Amino acid sequence: MVCKVQVYEKPVLNDPVLIEGLPGIGFVANIAALHLIQELEAKLFAEIQSSSFQDLAMSTGNGGTYFPTNQLYYHKGTGGERDLIILYGNTQALTTVGQYELCGKILDISQQLGCRYVLTIGGLKKEEKIDKPELYCTASDKETLQEALDLGAKVMKGHIFGVAGLLVGLCKLRKMKGLCLLAETAGLYPDVVATQEVLKALSKLLNLQTDMKSLSSAAEETGKILQSFGVVSTSSIEKKDREADFRWFI
Amino acid sequence: MVCKVQVYEKPVLNDPVLIEGLPGIGFVANIAALHLIQELEAKLFAEIQSSSFQDLAMSTGNGGTYFPTNQLYYHKGTGGERDLIILYGNTQALTTVGQYELCGKILDISQQLGCRYVLTIGGLKKEEKIDKPELYCTASDKETLQEALDLGAKVMKGHIFGVAGLLVGLCKLRKMKGLCLLAETAGLYPDVVATQEVLKALSKLLNLQTDMKSLSSAAEETGKILQSFGVVSTSSIEKKDREADFRWFI
Amino acid sequence: MVCKVQVYEKPVLNDPVLIEGLPGIGFVANIAALHLIQELEAKLFAEIQSSSFQDLAMSTGNGGTYFPTNQLYYHKGTGGERDLIILYGNTQALTTVGQYELCGKILDISQQLGCRYVLTIGGLKKEEKIDKPELYCTASDKETLQEALDLGAKVMKGHIFGVAGLLVGLCKLRKMKGLCLLAETAGLYPDVVATQEVLKALSKLLNLQTDMKSLSSAAEETGKILQSFGVVSTSSIEKKDREADFRWFI
Amino acid sequence: MVCKVQVYEKPVLNDPVLIEGLPGIGFVANIAALHLIQELEAKLFAEIQSSSFQDLAMSTGNGGTYFPTNQLYYHKGTGGERDLIILYGNTQALTTVGQYELCGKILDISQQLGCRYVLTIGGLKKEEKIDKPELYCTASDKETLQEALDLGAKVMKGHIFGVAGLLVGLCKLRKMKGLCLLAETAGLYPDVVATQEVLKALSKLLNLQTDMKSLSSAAEETGKILQSFGVVSTSSIEKKDREADFRWFI
Repeated sequence: MVCKVQVYEKPVLNDPVLIEGLPGIGFVANIAALHLIQELEAKLFAEIQSSSFQDLAMSTGNGGTYFPTNQLYYHKGTGGERDLIILYGNTQALTTVGQYELCGKILDISQQLGCRYVLTIGGLKKEEKIDKPELYCTASDKETLQEALDLGAKVMKGHIFGVAGLLVGLCKLRKMKGLCLLAETAGLYPDVVATQEVLKALSKLLNLQTDMKSLSSAAEETGKILQSFGVVSTSSIEKKDREADFRWFI
Repeated sequence: MVCKVQVYEKPVLNDPVLIEGLPGIGFVANIAALHLIQELEAKLFAEIQSSSFQDLAMSTGNGGTYFPTNQLYYHKGTGGERDLIILYGNTQALTTVGQYELCGKILDISQQLGCRYVLTIGGLKKEEKIDKPELYCTASDKETLQEALDLGAKVMKGHIFGVAGLLVGLCKLRKMKGLCLLAETAGLYPDVVATQEVLKALSKLLNLQTDMKSLSSAAEETGKILQSFGVVSTSSIEKKDREADFRWFI
Repeated sequence: MVCKVQVYEKPVLNDPVLIEGLPGIGFVANIAALHLIQELEAKLFAEIQSSSFQDLAMSTGNGGTYFPTNQLYYHKGTGGERDLIILYGNTQALTTVGQYELCGKILDISQQLGCRYVLTIGGLKKEEKIDKPELYCTASDKETLQEALDLGAKVMKGHIFGVAGLLVGLCKLRKMKGLCLLAETAGLYPDVVATQEVLKALSKLLNLQTDMKSLSSAAEETGKILQSFGVVSTSSIEKKDREADFRWFI
Repeated sequence: MVCKVQVYEKPVLNDPVLIEGLPGIGFVANIAALHLIQELEAKLFAEIQSSSFQDLAMSTGNGGTYFPTNQLYYHKGTGGERDLIILYGNTQALTTVGQYELCGKILDISQQLGCRYVLTIGGLKKEEKIDKPELYCTASDKETLQEALDLGAKVMKGHIFGVAGLLVGLCKLRKMKGLCLLAETAGLYPDVVATQEVLKALSKLLNLQTDMKSLSSAAEETGKILQSFGVVSTSSIEKKDREADFRWFI
């Protein structure tokens, strides 16, 4: 199957931006995406299962069953907001090949809806104490980079692993624009403060009217999901073993 | 090839339930499926080989040759029994990707026969002494969960690895219902007692008229197959090395 | 690509038998196949490269370049001989999935030429001193097994890894007959004595008129290939690390 | 996706030679290809991304974003020069299967442009001090080999791993000619001296009018790319762990 996609609805969108929100360092993207979905009342329109996800189901004890999945939500902007496609999920793919397949599928779907701009989010691990998280960025082209620099982000130097890096890397051959925004984080998750910095920049970029008040509730929800899956220490998720079953899973 | 399917017959079934019976913890599902096939005289209608099975053949010394395979049997219910599709086999797939491919293929075939309900079975490893094995369950939705709770099963909390978990997890995107029933087991296999608990619940759920008398003969047969393949200690099958060649093979 | 097949000729054959001759324990199959090809002047008609072979080329110092490949030869029998398809090569696939793909492709080609009978060959490792190598066999069905038993072979008990086992295992779903013939070997290769026992049985089974005189020259040639690739000790080839680059390569 | 190819232009070429220039030992091929592209002002006409490349993006701190990619350039020869297709890139595939897929795709594209001759380049690691790097060669056939021998190259003995070996190995089934030219190198990279020896031979073979003056600038550029990615010691790139994420990446 590689990727199995279930499309529930084909929304008509105007030049939408794809916002990536899968689990990663500090769960910055994951919280941000959940917050946006809840704040904007974004609507689920497609769901993806990949044979490169974990082969298991999880039961949380209250009757709910979770399984590895990626979801796509849409938001039709009002009052000058950009239309959005929001990628949310509880896992990334477990293998390199799987990551490429997954990202390719996500970009296929997004392009069919007219998307030409991909915005990925993440945390940038910092060992030292962080007073106020700095933002870092990298982009597919200089114009897009400049937009992020204008928001106060610094130029990122180094590797961006996983979907956040790959989606931007895959943009070029598809003639799409890509921007990756990373906020410094100590890796304690869910990192609300880092997420807030990213969301501020995101809101300016996309002219979104989002309230940050409920951000902590999104982080709390992410935390609850983590807890119900037994993911409570940072070390387990940050370990380098990239083939581990639970690398990206929350 | 990924999965090669040989369909021997296309049975006409009325709202059949797919019952999963592949090797796993305590061989609960495997014994249960073999027992049902023998008791109900279920008929083999399809066979699956996957490139994610082991690349070997086995000879048992009496002239029979075994190879890694999954089989699908059907039973047309009489006297109020539900029609059944029974998945039986001597292995699960060796890799995550293979498990997804295999489960996808099994669900494809089942859906083509009108199946909308998947029931997976397994053992739940318990370190302490078990007087009477408790049943645990998880389901794709609350109604299905309630059916299992009504039979005395408790809500499962944790991960369900392998085909038993994956089939239920894959149900949602296919708009099928899924239920996973696990019985506590010490992992000594073939565990007839744990299997009996699962079969009792199964019979009530599906209105099956099965006699438990010959259950121990199904367990004995499973045991003989195990022995002929040199699988005699529990440690080898329960080890965590999920990539091991013989993980699921009996 | 998975498997890339180059077909040089489509021979018209009468109920041909596929004889497997890839590298394995004692190189029994490999020597036997080379001997048959040379003795019968069998003709190369197809060549297979698989993405599961090693990603390298080898140069032997005399200007020849070798690369991982599998070849198919045919022999049109005369004087009561069976028509043959002979599988020869310098490697098996490196992964389980690759082995399935390779065997599937080989059986596809063979079936298109009317083949309904697969005969695989191999060595059976024996620790004790071997005076005269015994033959062992396993088969897809009792009739085929009986044919081998009538030649003095004993019933094999245990696992048959690799293409020799897999081809026989894959026969059933294709409604083909399969027979695996193994000769005891100390694993010192090229094992001419073990090969001779297999060839004797093979010749009787298929009514072949082959002279054993030049068998040692086939073994010698196999030995030279081994030497030119630096494979000189038995330990390297017999080690259990099944993912090793040179597992099956000579 | 396996391989995603973006073709920017379909050049009309006359019997072009494919020159391989991906990262490898001593970065000989990589520097040589970059030099040829710059010297001959070769034009980018196609780009390949593979799901077997690394799943990441890299940012160099000056705003540029790199991602794993392979590029194809063409050069229409003048004054007796052969037309060229030059393969350049910052990575090889991470897995054996990926290498086959990548090479297959590259040969597909090249054959569509009329290419019948593949020339791969590399470094041959030598432990002893090298005064003047010797050239070694291996070829798909004796005529092609003789061409290289006439240039003073010696016959290579041993394994040629990676794309340099595989492309030549894959030539045969496609009825193409293949030649691999290796220069001795201590593995200190970028090895300008080794590259120069290869380029001299290449220029004679293909009648190219290239100036070696700017060769060190190509090496310097390769060095800068290496540095910006933190690849500064030789040990990291020469280690044998062939599954390492950064095996071929610069």
